[in-house]
Amino acid sequence: MDRRHFLRNSALGSVAAAGLAAPAIAQQAPKLRWRMTSSYPKSLDTIHQGAVTLAEYVRGMTDGAFDIQVFAPGEIVGGLQAADAVAEGTVEAAHTSSYYYWGKDPVWALPTAIPFGLNPRQQNAWFYYGGGNDMMNEFYAKQNLYGLPLGNTGAQMGGWYRKEIATPEDLRGLKMRIGGFAGKIMEKLGVVPQNIPGGDIYASLEKGAIDAVEWVGPYDDEKLGFVKVAPYYYYPGWWEGGATLHAMFNLEAWNALPPAYQTALKVGCQAVTCDMMANYDWKNPDALLRLVAAGAQLRPMSEAIMDAGFQASQEVYAEIGAGNETFRKIFDTIAAFRGNSFQYQQIADYTYDTFMMIQKQKGNI
Amino acid sequence: MDRRHFLRNSALGSVAAAGLAAPAIAQQAPKLRWRMTSSYPKSLDTIHQGAVTLAEYVRGMTDGAFDIQVFAPGEIVGGLQAADAVAEGTVEAAHTSSYYYWGKDPVWALPTAIPFGLNPRQQNAWFYYGGGNDMMNEFYAKQNLYGLPLGNTGAQMGGWYRKEIATPEDLRGLKMRIGGFAGKIMEKLGVVPQNIPGGDIYASLEKGAIDAVEWVGPYDDEKLGFVKVAPYYYYPGWWEGGATLHAMFNLEAWNALPPAYQTALKVGCQAVTCDMMANYDWKNPDALLRLVAAGAQLRPMSEAIMDAGFQASQEVYAEIGAGNETFRKIFDTIAAFRGNSFQYQQIADYTYDTFMMIQKQKGNI
Repeated sequence: MDRRHFLRNSALGSVAAAGLAAPAIAQQAPKLRWRMTSSYPKSLDTIHQGAVTLAEYVRGMTDGAFDIQVFAPGEIVGGLQAADAVAEGTVEAAHTSSYYYWGKDPVWALPTAIPFGLNPRQQNAWFYYGGGNDMMNEFYAKQNLYGLPLGNTGAQMGGWYRKEIATPEDLRGLKMRIGGFAGKIMEKLGVVPQNIPGGDIYASLEKGAIDAVEWVGPYDDEKLGFVKVAPYYYYPGWWEGGATLHAMFNLEAWNALPPAYQTALKVGCQAVTCDMMANYDWKNPDALLRLVAAGAQLRPMSEAIMDAGFQASQEVYAEIGAGNETFRKIFDTIAAFRGNSFQYQQIADYTYDTFMMIQKQKGNI
Repeated sequence: MDRRHFLRNSALGSVAAAGLAAPAIAQQAPKLRWRMTSSYPKSLDTIHQGAVTLAEYVRGMTDGAFDIQVFAPGEIVGGLQAADAVAEGTVEAAHTSSYYYWGKDPVWALPTAIPFGLNPRQQNAWFYYGGGNDMMNEFYAKQNLYGLPLGNTGAQMGGWYRKEIATPEDLRGLKMRIGGFAGKIMEKLGVVPQNIPGGDIYASLEKGAIDAVEWVGPYDDEKLGFVKVAPYYYYPGWWEGGATLHAMFNLEAWNALPPAYQTALKVGCQAVTCDMMANYDWKNPDALLRLVAAGAQLRPMSEAIMDAGFQASQEVYAEIGAGNETFRKIFDTIAAFRGNSFQYQQIADYTYDTFMMIQKQKGNI
């Protein structure tokens, strides 16, 4: 595994090699206007904001010379066409979820979230220090793309259900909007998965086209109003323990960028990955309280359902891996890190959090 | 509370106000060489790396024009003189722990870590969206400083002890190296705290000048070799549930920076905050396994000690707050967020992590 730091690339290397000679600023800071199509509607301000913040950062760092305009789904292409539009050069960039495109190849699912995969901190560790970003870009290059993590939502909720689900049997025949690859696992449990972009979910649920929906977490879910049509709110979303969103860039456009602009995008994307998690973590606690006040019925997923999901996911990973070497290779690096990392986090982080949660329950904080 | 995004400052505002007029790049990208003194020795590569990575990012984004040189403690000033050296203008910048300087005023302790304070994600939420960074900079401005979070270590370990500590009584008279403000809480429990910078700890422990030491976590602790002289390794470090390190800049030097360089530093610091956590999370799991193999005796802090620490911390916060309005005001924003946030994280994140930790214990992952 390549553990070198993901930013120590040729761009930085060439700067170092050139020493401190006077930089040809005027030549290397061309005015550039790019378009970034987002898969997330503006109404979902937290998640849509990731692309907007990146654009602000890059404009700020380049004195406005590198200007990225962000477009909502439908303004240029639909939310699920974002990666294709970038690969084809319709736009230079997208903010999207890699797992939306898993139907082309399950490898697309790996860097976003896989059922019983990594939590948010583990995702970042794997991307930036575990070689995850490099491995994914070997794959993306074949799609004419270059990708960078651009935000994380935290562990997601298990979604909104019209009726309670207590046992694996209750999942049979359930028509559920579920993003990306997780639908394949859900199919094993008898769920009929529906892949619907964010902007269309509420209408589908309202008119009864679906029985359940998983989206993100309290703050985003609240905006889409699911509590009004499906009050049972389950946790956790075991298929998205720490979903990473991606910036995707057209490979030729990326390669043609001046090194300083490539670095600005890399650093900007990493900063947004921190910033979006902070944004969610600030907004979700109050949103959860408001949802409960509005009638949300909080329910933990039963152990039987979690166990059935875990078993199904293991079977699917083995099946796919048997015929897909890239999937197997990348999945194995995730799996190898996962066990040791959860064991580690159980020591200081988990014990600390547990004590603090008990203090909250006791009314001490 | 000011919830506006911390980067929507006047620098970005002025860029937006100027629209897309051709930027005067040559004028606004002067060659600049700054010195950043670190409080952390080079041997602690993970934590020292935060400043080095920031410097790489900024050089990369400015084509080498803004060149920050990082110095280890002792090369210019000692590790505990870093903030003073910046305030006085000896150097333009430091990478340090704000709580090292709590003796001047306990407010310095608040943004790093306080006993039973915020975990890493909560720290970021409070800084970037809860007004924490703005509040701290009102305070830092009076010290002639501007500060930005620059890295987080995660929940730290409770340290290395020559003998087992089972009850609060076992803490009485214990000479313990403990960083920053936590020593004041420990004093209430009868500990005799010692504030010793990283490079000097091992020697103090080896020659018996201290009985125990808390430092960071497995990867850093391993490098300092504590397992050889104090094998009982307790968790969690309830005084550092998510310690944030800081970049500190001389206020006049900061204010004189071109807006693009200010943004480069802000974005770079936020990216490093993500990057350092990823670095620790990648390296700590294996380090913990190696430490256990080398003889570390892992021990959870007893509930009696945790409860005593919690009680002591509450008393100290009330005592300080009674006579220090700035402390009280900032502490109250931390405390208000803390309870709701732990309640929220208990739902999806904690339940997910718990299930995965159980799978690890079962040997399923």
